[in-house]
Amino acid sequence: MNSSQERRYRSTGRGGTKRQEILAAATERFGRDGYEHTKWADIAHDVGVGPTALYHYFESKQHCLYEIMDEAIEDFRSSFVAITTKERDPARALAAVMADSFDLSEQEVHRNRVLVAEQGRLSHPSTAPPEEEARLAARARTRDLEFAWASFLSTAMRAGAIAESDPRLLTRAVLGLYNSIWHWYRPNGIVALTRVGEDFTGLALAMVGVPPEALQPQRAAA
Amino acid sequence: MNSSQERRYRSTGRGGTKRQEILAAATERFGRDGYEHTKWADIAHDVGVGPTALYHYFESKQHCLYEIMDEAIEDFRSSFVAITTKERDPARALAAVMADSFDLSEQEVHRNRVLVAEQGRLSHPSTAPPEEEARLAARARTRDLEFAWASFLSTAMRAGAIAESDPRLLTRAVLGLYNSIWHWYRPNGIVALTRVGEDFTGLALAMVGVPPEALQPQRAAA
Repeated sequence: MNSSQERRYRSTGRGGTKRQEILAAATERFGRDGYEHTKWADIAHDVGVGPTALYHYFESKQHCLYEIMDEAIEDFRSSFVAITTKERDPARALAAVMADSFDLSEQEVHRNRVLVAEQGRLSHPSTAPPEEEARLAARARTRDLEFAWASFLSTAMRAGAIAESDPRLLTRAVLGLYNSIWHWYRPNGIVALTRVGEDFTGLALAMVGVPPEALQPQRAAA
Repeated sequence: MNSSQERRYRSTGRGGTKRQEILAAATERFGRDGYEHTKWADIAHDVGVGPTALYHYFESKQHCLYEIMDEAIEDFRSSFVAITTKERDPARALAAVMADSFDLSEQEVHRNRVLVAEQGRLSHPSTAPPEEEARLAARARTRDLEFAWASFLSTAMRAGAIAESDPRLLTRAVLGLYNSIWHWYRPNGIVALTRVGEDFTGLALAMVGVPPEALQPQRAAA
């Protein structure tokens, strides 16, 4: 099972627990209709429970949102670490990370849309302890993801595989470029995801300064 | 007066009308504290009027937000057109547009923060006519800005000045990269705006495929 399949399994809630079903239903509603325009009661209806039953799993709609964001960021982080640990060539590792980032189910596209549309909420403290705990966890996870990227880019720069620049700003540029897609991309819209993936992968590699010849197939030693 | 100074003049409300003072106060509050966390009454207090007096100028807080966004997008569009009309060399025009985009007052940084944090609201119709009119105006303005960029990039591709790709996707990539900055950049934070501007200008030009030698000073003909 590749990392994308694992993510899909987890996020569609086929793991079987009611909590995962709620997360999956909320992700779809938030991603399609927007967080503000989704009622807690609609999510309850989607999973076949009464609205009060939801409070057995989540403190609030906001708590549920933070859990979705935290899981999304953790999936990005763990995939990034797995790919860059396995592929030691920095240029090929980058290309593999980009390819993986566009290998998405519709549910994962919704989740990306939620992540970028609501990221601003992570800056505002909550008064309810479970919400605040989930918010801080998602923020810490974001820092972990950024740190993993910056460390990788810094190593790649020292190896001469990519152009020299500030690794932390380059991290923000790469993640910012990728995240920007989910502000306008919609599943089943006019532009196919594979087209977007091809174009943005090429643009990201050019921005990072991977020479195109670095990705040519290596010839076997004679 | 350059385009940045004109923008500053307009957006700080030194033009003198109460409406412009309200827009300036709202921009600062929304940019610093967030739109949701700003009370209409706080803005009234900032400009020295009672809360009900605000309704003489705006239908609602949301109406005021849409007007701020519309003005910001129009300023980006008119600056882009002015610069690309004056500088006929595509690579130099791009560099000049990027330089102008980082020549910002603190008020303009707040405005950019508002624009990117609240852009998702432009997708949701309003029931109040003045709000809906302002929302549709801001959306149309966004399309005009994207069209101006895509036309420019398409011409630059045909002239061989930048790498070939889909001009509409490249437009979204460039604007997405620039917009992403305002999700994390804060005035007077640890990273100086000039540093961010230098790094992101270099990254954007590399992404678009401007060869570095295209920006070297031209030698005078002997």
